[in-house]
Amino acid sequence: MNPFADRLFEAVQKKESALVVGIDPEPSKLPDELFGGEGASKRRLVAEAVRRFSLEVLHATHDAAVAVKPQLAYFERLGFEGMAVYEELVREAQSLGLLVIADGKRGDIGSTAEQYAMAFLGPSSPENGSGAERLVAEADAEGPKADALTVNPYLGSDGIRPFLARTRAGKGLFLLAKTSNPSSSELQDLRVSAAGAGEGSGRRVYEVVGEWAEAWCREGLGRLGYGSAGLVVGATHPRELKALRAACPHVPFLVPGVGAQGATAEDVAAAFDRRGLGAVVNASRSILYAYLNEPGASFTAAARRAALSLRDALRRAAPLR
Amino acid sequence: MNPFADRLFEAVQKKESALVVGIDPEPSKLPDELFGGEGASKRRLVAEAVRRFSLEVLHATHDAAVAVKPQLAYFERLGFEGMAVYEELVREAQSLGLLVIADGKRGDIGSTAEQYAMAFLGPSSPENGSGAERLVAEADAEGPKADALTVNPYLGSDGIRPFLARTRAGKGLFLLAKTSNPSSSELQDLRVSAAGAGEGSGRRVYEVVGEWAEAWCREGLGRLGYGSAGLVVGATHPRELKALRAACPHVPFLVPGVGAQGATAEDVAAAFDRRGLGAVVNASRSILYAYLNEPGASFTAAARRAALSLRDALRRAAPLR
Repeated sequence: MNPFADRLFEAVQKKESALVVGIDPEPSKLPDELFGGEGASKRRLVAEAVRRFSLEVLHATHDAAVAVKPQLAYFERLGFEGMAVYEELVREAQSLGLLVIADGKRGDIGSTAEQYAMAFLGPSSPENGSGAERLVAEADAEGPKADALTVNPYLGSDGIRPFLARTRAGKGLFLLAKTSNPSSSELQDLRVSAAGAGEGSGRRVYEVVGEWAEAWCREGLGRLGYGSAGLVVGATHPRELKALRAACPHVPFLVPGVGAQGATAEDVAAAFDRRGLGAVVNASRSILYAYLNEPGASFTAAARRAALSLRDALRRAAPLR
Repeated sequence: MNPFADRLFEAVQKKESALVVGIDPEPSKLPDELFGGEGASKRRLVAEAVRRFSLEVLHATHDAAVAVKPQLAYFERLGFEGMAVYEELVREAQSLGLLVIADGKRGDIGSTAEQYAMAFLGPSSPENGSGAERLVAEADAEGPKADALTVNPYLGSDGIRPFLARTRAGKGLFLLAKTSNPSSSELQDLRVSAAGAGEGSGRRVYEVVGEWAEAWCREGLGRLGYGSAGLVVGATHPRELKALRAACPHVPFLVPGVGAQGATAEDVAAAFDRRGLGAVVNASRSILYAYLNEPGASFTAAARRAALSLRDALRRAAPLR
C-alpha cells in the first residue's frame, strides 16, 4: 500500500478538500427523533441512536471531506455496543472512499502499545503462523482497521514504535504535540532546561515531540514530501502552529480546534505548505450539531451545509497549487 | 460511597495484600486447550479463549489480590467482542469483592475526557434528566464501571478534571508520572528550566505531574490520609520512586514493573508508608504466564502460586503495621 501521507494528500488533491469530519456523537445532543423503540437494554437504544446519527452524518458529508475522525471516547461510553457501532462506521466510511483517523490518543509501554496498534491499525506485516497463531492472525484481520490513529507521546519512543511499524503497511499516526484545549500549556509548554536530558535545551515539551516526528518522517518520505508520523497541533494556538510548521517541514499535521473551539479557517492557513498540502483540519461539533442553530433544518442538511462551508473556507485559506 | 483511597487501603488491610493482578491476555500466549470450537467468526473464537483465560485466572488469584487491573488494549484488540469480555470481567471481579483498576491510560480535552470518565467510571453524581436525557443516564448506568482508571496527564488539568470529579462518587484515578518502560525518560525526565511556564523550575516533567496529584489529593483526604488522585510510578525506577514518595505523601501509588519487567518486591518497599499502606503493586505477565515456566502445571495453578508468592514477598517487603 502507498505510504499514508501520500494516500492522505493525494485524496486532498483529488477531492480538493482538507476537511476531516470529527464524529463525536454526544447522546444528549442527538435529535429526539433518533431515540425510538423499546428494549430491555437502554444502552442498546442509545447505541442505535448514535449509530443512525453517525452514519447519516457520514453520508451527508462524505463528499466534502477527505477523512472522518471518530472520537473513540463517545463509542466506548456505550460499552461493547458502542464499539460495534464504531466498527460499522469505519467500514462504511472506507466503503465511501474516506480515510479513517481513529482518535483514541492511545499510548502505553511497548508490549501494550503493540496491542493498541493491532487493535486500531492491524498487523505491520502479513502473518504466517500455524495453529493458534494462525487463528489469532485471522481474528485480527476480521475487525475493520482505521488508516491512522492519534497517539499520546508521554511514554516515549518504545511506546510509539509499534505504531511507527504500521507505516510500512500504509498506516499513519498523529502524535499529540500541542493540543487545542486551554490547559495544554500546563505540561506541553514547559520549557526544557539546558541541564535537561541531553537533547535540546530551551525548547518546550511540544517542540521536543515535534522533533521526534520530523526525524521519523525523514526516515520514509512519500512522493509528496511527507512522512507518515504526523502531529496533532491545535488551531487554537496559531503562533505555536506556525512555529511547528517551520520546524517540521516533513510532518503531516492534523489540526483540531476549528469551529466550536473557536479557531477559524484563516487561523489554520499556516499549517499548510505552498502547494496547499501538509495538513488536514478537523471540525466536529460545529458540523454534527449545526442543526441546533438552524431551527427547522434536518441534522443531515445542516451538517452538510456546515461541512461544505468549512471545506470552501479552507480552499480559500490554503488553495491547492 | 467511601473515598477510593480508603476503599483501596482498607481492602489492603483486610486482605493483607497489596497485590494487583494485571489481566493482559495476549492471545498467542494462551494455552492451546482454550482454543476450541468452530465458528464463522475467528475473532469470536479468540475472544472466547481470552474470556475463559481471564476469568479462570481471576478465580484462581482473587483471594491473593486486592484488585485486578485489566489492560484495555488486549480487549480492544478483539473489537467489540473483546470489550464484551472486558465488561464481564469487571462484573465478575467486583462480585468477588475485588476492586477494578481499568488500565486505559486515557486522556483528552475536557469534553472528550468527560466521555471517557463516563465510560469507565460512570457519572459523578446521580442524574435527573427527562426523556432522552433520562434514557442516556439509564444507558450509562447499565454498563459495569471500574473503580479507578489510569489517566495520561499530557493534556493538562482540563483533561483530568472529569476524572477528578468522579472521586466524589468514590472512584479513583492514577495519573501516569514515571512509567516503567525504558524510554519513559525521553519525555518524563526532561528537566524544566527556570524560564519555564511559571511553576517550578529544575524539576523533571514527572515531578510536575507528582505535584499536581499531591495538590489534588490534599483537597480530599480520606480516613487513612490519602486522596484519590493517584500516580503510576514504575518499580523499574527505584530512585525516582523513592523521591516521588517523599514529595507526594498523600498520593496512592500504583506500581507496575515487578516480575516480567525486572523489578523485585524489595524494589517497591520505598513506595509504602510506615504502616505498609500508600501503594499497590501490579504484576501481569509473571502471573498470567507462570505456566510457561512450569511444565505440566495448569495455568490456573501456576498463576495462583505466582500470585501468592508475590503477595507474600510484598508482605515481607512492606509489612502492615
